[in-house]
Amino acid sequence: MNIDGIPTRTLRAHPEQRCFDIIDQTRLPHALHWLRVTTLDGAAHAIRSMQVRGAPLIGVTAAHGLAIALAPDASDARLAEAAALLRSTRPTAINLHWALARMEAALAPLPPEARHEAAWAEAAAIADEDVAQNAAIGQHGLRLWREQLVARGDTLNVMTHCNAGWLATVDWGTALSPVYAAHDAGVHIHVWVSETRPRNQGLLTAWELEQHGVPHTLIADNAAGLLMRAGKVDAVIVGADRIAANGDVANKVGTYLKALAAADNGVPFYVAAPRSTLDFACADGADIPIEERDGDEFRLVHGLDSRGVPSALRQLPAGEDVANPAFDVTPGWLVKAIITERGTCPATRQGLLELYPEEARD
Amino acid sequence: MNIDGIPTRTLRAHPEQRCFDIIDQTRLPHALHWLRVTTLDGAAHAIRSMQVRGAPLIGVTAAHGLAIALAPDASDARLAEAAALLRSTRPTAINLHWALARMEAALAPLPPEARHEAAWAEAAAIADEDVAQNAAIGQHGLRLWREQLVARGDTLNVMTHCNAGWLATVDWGTALSPVYAAHDAGVHIHVWVSETRPRNQGLLTAWELEQHGVPHTLIADNAAGLLMRAGKVDAVIVGADRIAANGDVANKVGTYLKALAAADNGVPFYVAAPRSTLDFACADGADIPIEERDGDEFRLVHGLDSRGVPSALRQLPAGEDVANPAFDVTPGWLVKAIITERGTCPATRQGLLELYPEEARD
Repeated sequence: MNIDGIPTRTLRAHPEQRCFDIIDQTRLPHALHWLRVTTLDGAAHAIRSMQVRGAPLIGVTAAHGLAIALAPDASDARLAEAAALLRSTRPTAINLHWALARMEAALAPLPPEARHEAAWAEAAAIADEDVAQNAAIGQHGLRLWREQLVARGDTLNVMTHCNAGWLATVDWGTALSPVYAAHDAGVHIHVWVSETRPRNQGLLTAWELEQHGVPHTLIADNAAGLLMRAGKVDAVIVGADRIAANGDVANKVGTYLKALAAADNGVPFYVAAPRSTLDFACADGADIPIEERDGDEFRLVHGLDSRGVPSALRQLPAGEDVANPAFDVTPGWLVKAIITERGTCPATRQGLLELYPEEARD
Repeated sequence: MNIDGIPTRTLRAHPEQRCFDIIDQTRLPHALHWLRVTTLDGAAHAIRSMQVRGAPLIGVTAAHGLAIALAPDASDARLAEAAALLRSTRPTAINLHWALARMEAALAPLPPEARHEAAWAEAAAIADEDVAQNAAIGQHGLRLWREQLVARGDTLNVMTHCNAGWLATVDWGTALSPVYAAHDAGVHIHVWVSETRPRNQGLLTAWELEQHGVPHTLIADNAAGLLMRAGKVDAVIVGADRIAANGDVANKVGTYLKALAAADNGVPFYVAAPRSTLDFACADGADIPIEERDGDEFRLVHGLDSRGVPSALRQLPAGEDVANPAFDVTPGWLVKAIITERGTCPATRQGLLELYPEEARD
């Protein structure tokens, strides 16, 4: 996608310099700031502090962080230690585990002296696949919407939650990929963008839609139900941090509330995610670990100070007790379809196995 | 209730000085600032700008504003004009219309020279009744919880939305009145306080619970569903801005999402409101006008600047398109019981008429 008209990905690797660049998403939408990651700790910090966020991008960032970690020491011990550190950064998005497991599987059989270069190549492959898979999600989603929705009216009003756009991936995004595909295909599409407290990732979504010229309106998370009752929402589409084998979906906290409202109003609720988000080893959504983040971040509001400089500001009196779960689980029965790079399926075990028959076990 | 241990009401009338004092709620919880209202326009501004908010307190404030307006001119024309101005400030809370209609009904039959003094007396009566009704709501709610909930565990975990505490009324509050009654009766009660974007009235709720020593935890609005799925919520209780004759409830935007989550998880959802919130002339929730507030207020975040001074800060880039509906409608079938000063009833036409048989029409 483009920033100010210039094509870019969200992660730019420089293997020869043993580093990579990311956009510091904690400073968006107020400032676009590229950040160079040169160390394993820097990569872990970028994930933990949400300088990068979004399940697919977390996985890709971890893969590149592991590549950095393997020079000059690419021993078995170093590989295991670096992977463990990166794996510990955030618990819910399975893409992180998936990418690190893939890296380890590719690197472990190699002699240590071959691992560093191979790690950069494997990380690049993961990034390239992410782009291709997300592009495919866009086309599958667009096809689905043409079948199910576009006939309903001139403008397709889609609601999303959090940011599952290109900022959450290497390119295209998951939930927003069909939005971009539709917009580019000439479908009149308008997006209801949910603020997504407490971290306000809706502002990232608004920023990227603006960059691509997609009409959109920002709303408080609380307004979702009202808009659906008023008939102003044709579909809801979100990404996912982990999809259990039974079709239950862990995604940014608040997703479940939107899914309930969609069900109560006959609005189709879609989940878009690549293979790396599917956790066939996790039988049920109840088994997905839900990250509880520091209450302090709930207090911080990214605003502009009186000089127009982005700053983090205390919104709450110190000492206020705060609970800050980052995700919730939407049961599969609330999901009309899961959209992956292979196509679409019902949010059930059977549906997922029809798309991924190789995952079937006796 | 008390502020720093000193009993107070939220509105202090000074008829002899033709003015009244309110707490400027736009500055809470960062600063407690009493504001003197001396003109009709000042009263209208206080309601419109949400220096006072909460359906019952809006009604009481309007009544006092009308009293101010009637000196020195208490003619029929002045009475009608002043009432019309106050009525235009906010559309959803029916208490505003109710209080003004009551004032007009009391004053219109009097000779103009008797109206000013009578207006202060009638406004005081409305305020006193608000206090008494809310105290009764507290006892009815506590009785209901003892029957339905308290046996469930040692600590009663109640979730609320927005602020329907004593700040939203003259005293006690509506939704929070049973909370205070339970706490004062020795029930171990803990309150999940929803932030309530975009105006963050949850911070008012946290502030008043803190003043009264009631344990509570602030959460993002988005976290409500997760907490209910996790079994951490025994009941939800909210206030209302208008209850239609069929039991549909208009309340702060986001209430409907909490009601859906409560229904999906078998958590009882209660609505507490005095008679002045019931609109028997409104057949159905779909007929309740929903206020759309200025998108600019969505952009404003009440925070502290680097010197610890409360300030309003731009959170969004200018020009971002924002929709800012202030209320939503929760259908009566999602409500387990309505709690009024007369007792409790199902959220149905029949239920409401059993409490208020005088409203039955052929």
